[in-house]
Amino acid sequence: MRSLKLVLAYDGTAYRGWQVQPQASTVQAAVEAAWRQATGEAIRVVASGRTDAGVHALGQAASLRTGSPLPVATLRRALNANLPGDVRVLAVTEAAAGFHAVRDALRKTYRYVLQDGGVPDPFTRRYCWYLPRRLDERAMQRAADPLTGEHDFASFQGAGSPRVTTVRTVQEFSVARHATELAGQVVIEITANGFLYNMVRNLVGTLVQVGQGRRDADWPNRILGGRDRRLAGPTAPPQGLFLVRVDYDSETSG
Amino acid sequence: MRSLKLVLAYDGTAYRGWQVQPQASTVQAAVEAAWRQATGEAIRVVASGRTDAGVHALGQAASLRTGSPLPVATLRRALNANLPGDVRVLAVTEAAAGFHAVRDALRKTYRYVLQDGGVPDPFTRRYCWYLPRRLDERAMQRAADPLTGEHDFASFQGAGSPRVTTVRTVQEFSVARHATELAGQVVIEITANGFLYNMVRNLVGTLVQVGQGRRDADWPNRILGGRDRRLAGPTAPPQGLFLVRVDYDSETSG
Repeated sequence: MRSLKLVLAYDGTAYRGWQVQPQASTVQAAVEAAWRQATGEAIRVVASGRTDAGVHALGQAASLRTGSPLPVATLRRALNANLPGDVRVLAVTEAAAGFHAVRDALRKTYRYVLQDGGVPDPFTRRYCWYLPRRLDERAMQRAADPLTGEHDFASFQGAGSPRVTTVRTVQEFSVARHATELAGQVVIEITANGFLYNMVRNLVGTLVQVGQGRRDADWPNRILGGRDRRLAGPTAPPQGLFLVRVDYDSETSG
Repeated sequence: MRSLKLVLAYDGTAYRGWQVQPQASTVQAAVEAAWRQATGEAIRVVASGRTDAGVHALGQAASLRTGSPLPVATLRRALNANLPGDVRVLAVTEAAAGFHAVRDALRKTYRYVLQDGGVPDPFTRRYCWYLPRRLDERAMQRAADPLTGEHDFASFQGAGSPRVTTVRTVQEFSVARHATELAGQVVIEITANGFLYNMVRNLVGTLVQVGQGRRDADWPNRILGGRDRRLAGPTAPPQGLFLVRVDYDSETSG
């Protein structure tokens, strides 16, 4: 059996998230069906993490084991030929034996896009959270800074998916102003060695409270210290969230 | 009666173009229905030009005459509240009496977006023409250059909409390489004092022949001289086309 790594981009708008569910259109089901059409094989494709309904990916990683002898370029082409246009396989590569997209992930980067002010841009409405007033992105960056490093992120963990440990290391946490032709945007990027359930969306919902001037820039760090989900801001909606990249050791992921 | 000018952005994917048609969803019908809901008035909204099915706008201009006394900011808000999310009114302004969006237009700018090579970007598939191989954008720019200025563009006029004169003045015609996170793009922008039916899409289809190396960079200029539609390249598909801007004299359009 060969171990392969897939890198996938998808527009999550039409999907109930990554994971296979009965009677629901999911990205995993689409990829597994395309694999079956391409190779005749019914296999499981394991993503680095389950993206929720409406969440997008620019570089989701997945692992699989296959008996197919087809070259990786042929597999990529055949998968894309059998996938709907909102899911694309960017790369198929040979991986070390036993490569596992969840277990072997070293680092992930998420992006969250906010439109602040103006008229909601009709071209990005499925790809951002629209907020009617301009945000103070500098205050948001000041609020994000003390959250980098190793911390217990229990306050930012969504309900229903408890983990053994809620300690994670955030390596990068940036807040930057961008602009499309029609709208101002604030783009948040966060890289960490792992994420708790809804952690990015809870951090974003909290930073937005700071950006709106409802809370001061020290507030998120105080919430972190409290280790209690009830302290944090609301969960940001899914459509602004993108899984940008998953990093692996080059020896395992090929 | 007041004369007003609207500036509109729309994602044309779901529409059979601008113009009202029986049994079809059109942008004009959506805007006129929103006006009726906002003011109770059944009026005609005249756009600077009819965009075709699947064509987008970043800054379509339209004129209307109304008996409504509502302030322009209130009208903009009320229109957007009654429009679907893929059509937005960016601005409502008072115009000179008799302002007419077609007759008074001085200049329009269109953009056409091509993705050349790579895997089709799932986030831009409704907003570009995907071509599997890399284009030579410099050859395309060399081909575009002699088409600026005043010329008879009869060779690039689509069938079925003859105009009194096919002479137009192209003020800007640029071909530039861009990139999204997932894909390379070639973006063509053209500004002229007026456009014949399908002129931009016919010019783009012709330039693509040059960019693909099928024709040399002098070919489009030779077609221009021939004044015969049968000489030009194929019509580029609608989804890559954006009406970017319509310019008016500031005295007429307010």
